[in-house]
Amino acid sequence: MVCGFDVLGFAVNDPYDKMSICFTDKPGITIINEDAYGLPTDPEKNVAGAALLAMLEEVDLEQGLELRICKYIKPGSGVGSSAASAAGAVVAANRLLNDRFSKEDLVRFAMNGEKLASGVKHADNIAPCIYGGVTLIRSIFPLDIVQLAAPELYVTIVHPQIEVRTADARSILKQGILLKDAIRQWGNIAGLVAGLLKSDYELIGRSLEDVLIEPVRSILIPGFDTIKQRSKEAGALGGGISGSGPSIFMLSKEEATAKAIEQEMHSVYEKLGLEHHIYVTTINQTGIIFTN
Amino acid sequence: MVCGFDVLGFAVNDPYDKMSICFTDKPGITIINEDAYGLPTDPEKNVAGAALLAMLEEVDLEQGLELRICKYIKPGSGVGSSAASAAGAVVAANRLLNDRFSKEDLVRFAMNGEKLASGVKHADNIAPCIYGGVTLIRSIFPLDIVQLAAPELYVTIVHPQIEVRTADARSILKQGILLKDAIRQWGNIAGLVAGLLKSDYELIGRSLEDVLIEPVRSILIPGFDTIKQRSKEAGALGGGISGSGPSIFMLSKEEATAKAIEQEMHSVYEKLGLEHHIYVTTINQTGIIFTN
Repeated sequence: MVCGFDVLGFAVNDPYDKMSICFTDKPGITIINEDAYGLPTDPEKNVAGAALLAMLEEVDLEQGLELRICKYIKPGSGVGSSAASAAGAVVAANRLLNDRFSKEDLVRFAMNGEKLASGVKHADNIAPCIYGGVTLIRSIFPLDIVQLAAPELYVTIVHPQIEVRTADARSILKQGILLKDAIRQWGNIAGLVAGLLKSDYELIGRSLEDVLIEPVRSILIPGFDTIKQRSKEAGALGGGISGSGPSIFMLSKEEATAKAIEQEMHSVYEKLGLEHHIYVTTINQTGIIFTN
Repeated sequence: MVCGFDVLGFAVNDPYDKMSICFTDKPGITIINEDAYGLPTDPEKNVAGAALLAMLEEVDLEQGLELRICKYIKPGSGVGSSAASAAGAVVAANRLLNDRFSKEDLVRFAMNGEKLASGVKHADNIAPCIYGGVTLIRSIFPLDIVQLAAPELYVTIVHPQIEVRTADARSILKQGILLKDAIRQWGNIAGLVAGLLKSDYELIGRSLEDVLIEPVRSILIPGFDTIKQRSKEAGALGGGISGSGPSIFMLSKEEATAKAIEQEMHSVYEKLGLEHHIYVTTINQTGIIFTN
């Protein structure tokens, strides 16, 4: 989440994946893909499977688990596709096991899915899926998750149909930075947290500034600067790169603004001749939703 | 304020300086020191004077101002002595001028005092004196001050009688840092702001960690590690270097804890044979207080 790189994230209501889980006589984990992405079905190579395997290390289960996955969040979009898979799988399995694990346990298990996807155990995408709302990962070792109440916010997300590999987006980051830039960044994250907790939209807007990561990563995303500028002119509070890109998100106080931003994004990418999907949605406040 | 280096600060109720101001027929600014510190009385060389001079550039005053200062906050202690002088002077003068300036204006004027004292215009000590409570300087140019409601907190401050020049404390800081350390720091400042606004004392405690500045600066302060460790054992939520040192502060939820910490600090410095002053106080929630 912009200045909250690696520590602040939020969940959205759209797009989302659908999953169902049941016990089965076949031991171990069976994964059935109901979409066309062709993701691996070997649990050790599948993000949802890796999360479930970590969970099963802590529970003595005689039966097997059969997980059906229908993904609508495109892998590699920057919208947290791997987190959705990993979090969804363990939340569903936990319900089958009568909710024996805490939310924090579930985050711990699901991080194994993120490790498979990106090589690094990180929780800033997982935790929002499981807790809902905006979450802060104050510390990853030991895991310290803080749920932050957020006011109503509309989110416009554009996903240009290009591929940015998470590993590439990580490798171009500078490992050494200037103290003065870091101070500006932590002034902004402090302002963002205060703005969220005080429902101060103007403060949220002023604080949505990333002086460290965005200037480096945004060069991988065509039209980024234009989209950001025109979104702000249309009334966006602010926004930035979603995950490691290439998706871009913008936050708004009003739904009408979020829709006006959709038009701006559409117009920029149409002019560039870039295929794209746009979502106009809200922050998901409850985490993964059960049906039936 | 620990992980909030350069952006988060708070005011305490003790120690404090006393000042009085009145109009005088003598044009310009007259400074009268009522203490024994021998600070300059030339307004251009006096921190309070520099702040007043900045203010007078924006007001057409026929009379002069006479400021009497009695300092109890020792200059160079790290407890924000220069901020107290600069902030006190402009707040007092503003009352004489029927409060024509906003709090933000007053911070802007008082920053000229900090510039005289340390060479840099900074507001993280000034703003708490003027606003009270815990304040965030999200941005210095343009100035963006956010007041953060804080729960009741006791503060134990020890001032070992050694001199650490602000310029020295600044010069030993590394200008280049690692991104991973900065991420840990901004996770902590986000946690601290959330802890303050949610009155979550445990979160405040976990977040009071500075992985960047304290490890470097604390080497200038004898007994620092021992004092910190023993304060935490005595129940402190956490704490660190006050300003640029040499004072050390610790925060507690209960007054009894704050007093137990006082004993620990006293015992450490007595053993080291170091003269010291200790204050057990609370966060000042209102800013500068008027009497008479």
